[in-house]
Amino acid sequence: MWLKCERFYHLTRPSPPPPFVPPPRHLVDDTESIAPNPESCMTTSRPIAAATLAGLKAAVGPGGVLEGKDTAAYCVSWRDDWKGAVPLVLRPSTTAEVAALVTICAAHKVAIVPQGGRTGLTGASQPHDDMSEVIISTERMKRILAIDLDNDTLTVEAGVVLKDIQDAAERANRFFPLSLGAEGSCQIGGNISTNAGGVQVLKYGNTRAQILGLEVVLPDGQVWNGLRGLRKDNTGYDLKQLFIAGEGTLGLITKAVLRLYPKPTATETAWVAVDSPAKAVALLGHMKQQMGEQITAFELICRQIVDLLLTGVPGHTDPMRAPHPWYVLMDVASQGAPGSLRDPLTSALESAVETDLISDAVVAGSSAQALKLWRMREDMAQAQVSAGGSIGHDVSVPVSKIPEFQARADAAMEAAYPGVRHCSFGHVGDGNMHYNPIRPPNWDAARFKAERAKVNRIVHDIVVSLGGSISAEHGIGRMRRDDNLRYKSPVEIDLMRKIKRALDPDNIMNPGKVI
Amino acid sequence: MWLKCERFYHLTRPSPPPPFVPPPRHLVDDTESIAPNPESCMTTSRPIAAATLAGLKAAVGPGGVLEGKDTAAYCVSWRDDWKGAVPLVLRPSTTAEVAALVTICAAHKVAIVPQGGRTGLTGASQPHDDMSEVIISTERMKRILAIDLDNDTLTVEAGVVLKDIQDAAERANRFFPLSLGAEGSCQIGGNISTNAGGVQVLKYGNTRAQILGLEVVLPDGQVWNGLRGLRKDNTGYDLKQLFIAGEGTLGLITKAVLRLYPKPTATETAWVAVDSPAKAVALLGHMKQQMGEQITAFELICRQIVDLLLTGVPGHTDPMRAPHPWYVLMDVASQGAPGSLRDPLTSALESAVETDLISDAVVAGSSAQALKLWRMREDMAQAQVSAGGSIGHDVSVPVSKIPEFQARADAAMEAAYPGVRHCSFGHVGDGNMHYNPIRPPNWDAARFKAERAKVNRIVHDIVVSLGGSISAEHGIGRMRRDDNLRYKSPVEIDLMRKIKRALDPDNIMNPGKVI
Repeated sequence: MWLKCERFYHLTRPSPPPPFVPPPRHLVDDTESIAPNPESCMTTSRPIAAATLAGLKAAVGPGGVLEGKDTAAYCVSWRDDWKGAVPLVLRPSTTAEVAALVTICAAHKVAIVPQGGRTGLTGASQPHDDMSEVIISTERMKRILAIDLDNDTLTVEAGVVLKDIQDAAERANRFFPLSLGAEGSCQIGGNISTNAGGVQVLKYGNTRAQILGLEVVLPDGQVWNGLRGLRKDNTGYDLKQLFIAGEGTLGLITKAVLRLYPKPTATETAWVAVDSPAKAVALLGHMKQQMGEQITAFELICRQIVDLLLTGVPGHTDPMRAPHPWYVLMDVASQGAPGSLRDPLTSALESAVETDLISDAVVAGSSAQALKLWRMREDMAQAQVSAGGSIGHDVSVPVSKIPEFQARADAAMEAAYPGVRHCSFGHVGDGNMHYNPIRPPNWDAARFKAERAKVNRIVHDIVVSLGGSISAEHGIGRMRRDDNLRYKSPVEIDLMRKIKRALDPDNIMNPGKVI
Repeated sequence: MWLKCERFYHLTRPSPPPPFVPPPRHLVDDTESIAPNPESCMTTSRPIAAATLAGLKAAVGPGGVLEGKDTAAYCVSWRDDWKGAVPLVLRPSTTAEVAALVTICAAHKVAIVPQGGRTGLTGASQPHDDMSEVIISTERMKRILAIDLDNDTLTVEAGVVLKDIQDAAERANRFFPLSLGAEGSCQIGGNISTNAGGVQVLKYGNTRAQILGLEVVLPDGQVWNGLRGLRKDNTGYDLKQLFIAGEGTLGLITKAVLRLYPKPTATETAWVAVDSPAKAVALLGHMKQQMGEQITAFELICRQIVDLLLTGVPGHTDPMRAPHPWYVLMDVASQGAPGSLRDPLTSALESAVETDLISDAVVAGSSAQALKLWRMREDMAQAQVSAGGSIGHDVSVPVSKIPEFQARADAAMEAAYPGVRHCSFGHVGDGNMHYNPIRPPNWDAARFKAERAKVNRIVHDIVVSLGGSISAEHGIGRMRRDDNLRYKSPVEIDLMRKIKRALDPDNIMNPGKVI
């Protein structure tokens, strides 16, 4: 029993945030050649009247207000790469307080930066630096409101930390599959606003798939109560979908109804050597035929990052005797008896060896071994940092295009930066790679990082030509906004703007983000 | 192998459309006491200029135009309950032709009724009768454009019949889970526009969950190309979600990228007797703990409909010796070896007997037996018709509220119509019941059916008080529009109208439907 629990515990925390170092703001702004859109870049850019500030403070009471230097920590991202300044951080504790705040802001056209756990990677929850905005933080809205075991749902306030949701599900003998590196501090409202991903998307889907209902304070201060716990509801436009991944630009999420799942009871972990991304994709197809939706994680890892890990991060050993160019780390899980997946997994891997899909495979013989394999995946961010001077991308393409993407991106990078080290790992089962080239050995980190915009362009041009996405799971925020405007069709940008204008005509909700 | 195929075949076609007889149009319109919203009811209501009609005809060529009496079949729903009239049915064969048509309509403010297989139950795809609209049918857009096995996706035009998609997946050794009674004639564009459900939603989700990308002709005639095959894409608002379940009011879907799944290889079917809906809900919880997401279908069936089936539809026998008040029909499936689910299923049912959750159970010993059990479920629509005079509802509540819903609805119906026969069956695993009371024996069918609006009110008031939906899987169309406007909050209606106005300011896309 203990074994089962430990393995289950492990399954909930595999993915660290990828080693993604956003540029200083001016870099992104200056190096993009398209003209920034004046409308979308605009913040209100004027000081907020003292009477308005007083009204906002009164609406939440002294416990809900931070001013002056107390606001500093709320104005900077966790990697210290996005900074701003606000006159007030407002910390409402109820939906009614949020609504009161937004109503005042709407009346006075004061821009709002909705904020959760500040663990995002794209500057979506940091204010600009002109003191024209206020932050509304959900950090005091951390109640778990209801758990409905027969309906397999959990109703929570937006400020509940993801880890607390996982734990509440666990205590109720259920499973909440969303899991990511920041889970100890990120809040579910932020997860929903960015449609967070992770390593179990292959089986369970993104955050979007976990949301049955939402309560949202709209840009005019009205509360939309869409807090339904229904699996089927075809009564018009599915409004919640707009706020999921909306990054706070259409409203401020205050509550959510989340889906729960039965706990997996049988799990196995394997570390498999493959010759190429093409073999990894073929292996995924083979494994799906053999084990279907029991595959919960399928991560592709290049040898380079394993080398960096073995030399740069203490405590790791190569699970295999000889080096191989690529690896797949996979988990399978089911509701069968503990151990019942061992034979099917071994047998599927054996036939993969026979058909030359894979060169070698290690199946974890214990939960400790499985944990050790997953720690390698978790420490890859640290390994990358140890190399110094890498440029991150969070891209997706159709799974079938992964090999072409890797080959073309590597060739283009080599042509532009001879000696550049190709470093790539990610959730290949979802077509999502973190493609993070590392400076040529004879370049220093700063010189290579100054090439960020050019490198982004090289990689993103290839991604988009393959029908892919320049932000698979991290969102747009401020960092990818101009790039997004470049790559999306004018028709799509126009549709997004129409929706933004329809819901937020005064552009007070998180202006300058996404669109 | 043949056995496996046959069982698989069976799995793809379980659900008939529920016995849902919409009222004649005037009944719904006349008996709702809230004033119809003049804006949303409005069609253009003026004759279309001859020059405009000529332009539309020229845009698709002679093979794409139907006029006069040839339009009749396109103006009536398959149950003959929604009728209208149009001067033209336009049958484009390419997206470019659709765009050309919509551009002309936009320029002249001609209303459009997008139309697929005409199998909907709410009048969403039938025109009004004032000759002010044209139908654009996707029936000539029936190409399967691409299948990507490594990406597990299928790209299709909107007019492809659902059955042809299932078959294409099957030929490629894949599984497309959407399955419903009309699958031989409904088109995927219509399935997407109504977010169709069915019996496998418990495991696979609604149509929405199967859609990775869409191409849509917008109300101004522009084409939005969102035809991406990505499992992760966080680059702004997820626009496709608006067109899914949009019932053609925001645009006309022309192409889609669909998700494919590995085929289930082991399946079992059981027919289980329970004392009450509460026991059925508890059984669902028990089975989820035992077998997790291997449960693909979980249908609750009342004894009354079984009685009607045994007496009114030839070829059925009671699978059990004694009658029981309620039954659950369930399927389990996995990618394990054929037969590998038999023991886990039997063992889960045995422990359910021991804990008094169930009174009796039959596990199908062969695919023929499984098919026989599912034919009972399929013929329930016919059984209901044989009783004459039932009033259908397609409602959902949280699964935990199913027992309370049943008890309150039965009591309220009995109070209002003494002797009424309670008849209820549906997808209880999704909280979705087709609650279809049958006339008291001493009433004739017409008299009871004349009570439809009052009966709807009784049932829907209870559903909404339990946080439920008045249309779980059939959509709104014209039939439920006024009821929907009644039950949704003003904030939600306002949001929906803002979106409608933003995308379709002249209200030319399927006016008078949904909103």
